[in-house]
Amino acid sequence: MASIITLLTDFGTRDAYVAAMKGVILGLNPQAVLVDLTHEVPPQDILAGAFILAEAAPYFPEGTIHLAVVDPGVGTERRGLAARARGQFWVGPDNGLFSLAFGGAPEAIIVSLIEPAFFRPEVSATFHGRDIFAPVAAHLSLGVDPARLGPTIRDPVALAMAEPVFTPAEARGEIIYVDRFGNLVSNLPGERLAAWLAGRDFRLQVGSLDISQLSHTYGEVPAGHCLALIGSHGFLEIAGNRESAARKLGAGKGLSLKINKI
Amino acid sequence: MASIITLLTDFGTRDAYVAAMKGVILGLNPQAVLVDLTHEVPPQDILAGAFILAEAAPYFPEGTIHLAVVDPGVGTERRGLAARARGQFWVGPDNGLFSLAFGGAPEAIIVSLIEPAFFRPEVSATFHGRDIFAPVAAHLSLGVDPARLGPTIRDPVALAMAEPVFTPAEARGEIIYVDRFGNLVSNLPGERLAAWLAGRDFRLQVGSLDISQLSHTYGEVPAGHCLALIGSHGFLEIAGNRESAARKLGAGKGLSLKINKI
Amino acid sequence: MASIITLLTDFGTRDAYVAAMKGVILGLNPQAVLVDLTHEVPPQDILAGAFILAEAAPYFPEGTIHLAVVDPGVGTERRGLAARARGQFWVGPDNGLFSLAFGGAPEAIIVSLIEPAFFRPEVSATFHGRDIFAPVAAHLSLGVDPARLGPTIRDPVALAMAEPVFTPAEARGEIIYVDRFGNLVSNLPGERLAAWLAGRDFRLQVGSLDISQLSHTYGEVPAGHCLALIGSHGFLEIAGNRESAARKLGAGKGLSLKINKI
Repeated sequence: MASIITLLTDFGTRDAYVAAMKGVILGLNPQAVLVDLTHEVPPQDILAGAFILAEAAPYFPEGTIHLAVVDPGVGTERRGLAARARGQFWVGPDNGLFSLAFGGAPEAIIVSLIEPAFFRPEVSATFHGRDIFAPVAAHLSLGVDPARLGPTIRDPVALAMAEPVFTPAEARGEIIYVDRFGNLVSNLPGERLAAWLAGRDFRLQVGSLDISQLSHTYGEVPAGHCLALIGSHGFLEIAGNRESAARKLGAGKGLSLKINKI
Repeated sequence: MASIITLLTDFGTRDAYVAAMKGVILGLNPQAVLVDLTHEVPPQDILAGAFILAEAAPYFPEGTIHLAVVDPGVGTERRGLAARARGQFWVGPDNGLFSLAFGGAPEAIIVSLIEPAFFRPEVSATFHGRDIFAPVAAHLSLGVDPARLGPTIRDPVALAMAEPVFTPAEARGEIIYVDRFGNLVSNLPGERLAAWLAGRDFRLQVGSLDISQLSHTYGEVPAGHCLALIGSHGFLEIAGNRESAARKLGAGKGLSLKINKI
Repeated sequence: MASIITLLTDFGTRDAYVAAMKGVILGLNPQAVLVDLTHEVPPQDILAGAFILAEAAPYFPEGTIHLAVVDPGVGTERRGLAARARGQFWVGPDNGLFSLAFGGAPEAIIVSLIEPAFFRPEVSATFHGRDIFAPVAAHLSLGVDPARLGPTIRDPVALAMAEPVFTPAEARGEIIYVDRFGNLVSNLPGERLAAWLAGRDFRLQVGSLDISQLSHTYGEVPAGHCLALIGSHGFLEIAGNRESAARKLGAGKGLSLKINKI
């Protein structure tokens, strides 16, 4: 079956790790269509992986299988999971990596991977991506029902991340992701922010910046200046026009920002 | 339909941008065969993108669709285009990115992308790669006639690049691309140069170098030395034998070179 | 035919080189399934390429074609080869790049590529990856018998690499590969080491480290500490728990290590 399987890891593309996973998948399902989400998640940065996965996955068609491995706990007691949620499938470690993609989805079916019939015959202690998650993804692409992979779990690990705070007068959040252009992505959802603002004027403070409007395009401010906009991912983002906002502000992940109605 | 769609961007592969474009394409045409040209075009460097595209595209079969996005003007009034030229299809911003690939091809059919039926339902101001160009490429791969995408245009934006100068005694050009090995690619076409030289001896000056012959392989000069040859892309190139010519000359893009018949 | 063709090079992904190879393949066999092993082999590092290839290839299904180009001798008299060995196919320069993948396999059939009918019509002196190896791989994927590509050779070039030494009391090896996590991979095969140790206690010395046991997971030592384990590739490896062993030891490729029974 020509199912799409996406791959997201923090393995980089220098070594044989990603290729070995692809070989395992194609050995089980030669028809699988493999698409790299990214392999450049900062090493062991589960939040960054969760963010990229949640940002890319909605653009893929129903039935897509997302294989994601950012797995600092490999070889410990952490569970592996497979899930069906939001019309797609998800396979990887149970460490919060999927929280932003389908956390809280009421219809999600999540199972713990305990059935070795769907693993490689020998499972190493250090590379479950190749030995467990890749073959499980391949079996899902062949139509295996997730229920056959292991028992249902109802307490998947939640991602440790700062929640935005909305009070009547103030919204507070923080930068959770910095992309390669130096755009600073916050944890403030654009839709919620718009509803909260309800058209009121505001003052946004982030680092040394003071911003009083939301832009729609980079070109609305002079080159070298920063602006705020709702990014294509749906979150409030601080960006620069032909400039890296991260460099301009000398700041990155964890920087706090606040918005006051005026 | 199993059409080939290539992708070239300056988005890098760290973030979700390229993956989102691929998801959009596969959602419209699950049979599309996706091939990355590169996503490491230097940010907003239209000339470098145009060069890489023109160098790679001719090796792809007839009917291939090339989706290219190096788009500093996204969100402004710049047009988007689709084209049929040289037996292949081309989709991206109308900013000169396709000039080297099919600029001046007399049979080229170029249209301006104004028909939203072929876009994503919501078009962001900052990411036309995902919202306009990817779905248009997918529709082309499904057999949509370019004429349905918008009106014909006859004045596509030309790439701002230095043209080589040939006088009876002297040819002058400049370095337009530096590859990752430090090879310096000029804007002097090898065939035209050969016709102009017509077998005469010559002296090539570039930076501190003085070269009096065209080599065929790197090994024709001692290790650590530089040479001139017609590269696999068809342009005069300054390269080093087990050495980066860019590092050796302390030079890169924009460096001028001249050749005198002697 | 939907054959899998993997690609391994030292070309990087910034330039058009890899894409041109893929275009050539798809022009000959539009059904070929292309999988990147890596394109980030350190430039001209045949040993590193051989290691990555040997590590990834066994995970691919029977009949997979591995196209590998790390080729400092391009344009010289070095031969090109195609081979059938270990149930898979191999194409690239005859310079030791395939030694670890199938060197010494008694059933290997190796031919020298001399039949231009299977090359591109024009063969450049600097890019055999595109002009010879890519089309040969494509023809293999279409079912061409390797015997048609050229005469059998029985003396493929062997890789220049240190062999491990085992005496009754001591085993000595060296680091042959450093992955992007800073894990130090040695040339000591895990199975042979286990047989040699036969359960005895030992002392492993590498750089400033002194290790007396084999671990199974990174978590068996405190964070920031180093350990020895048999990696997923089957070789003895020095790794760190949430730490780069290469950085910790200030060491890399070529570092020697020894193990004494006690």
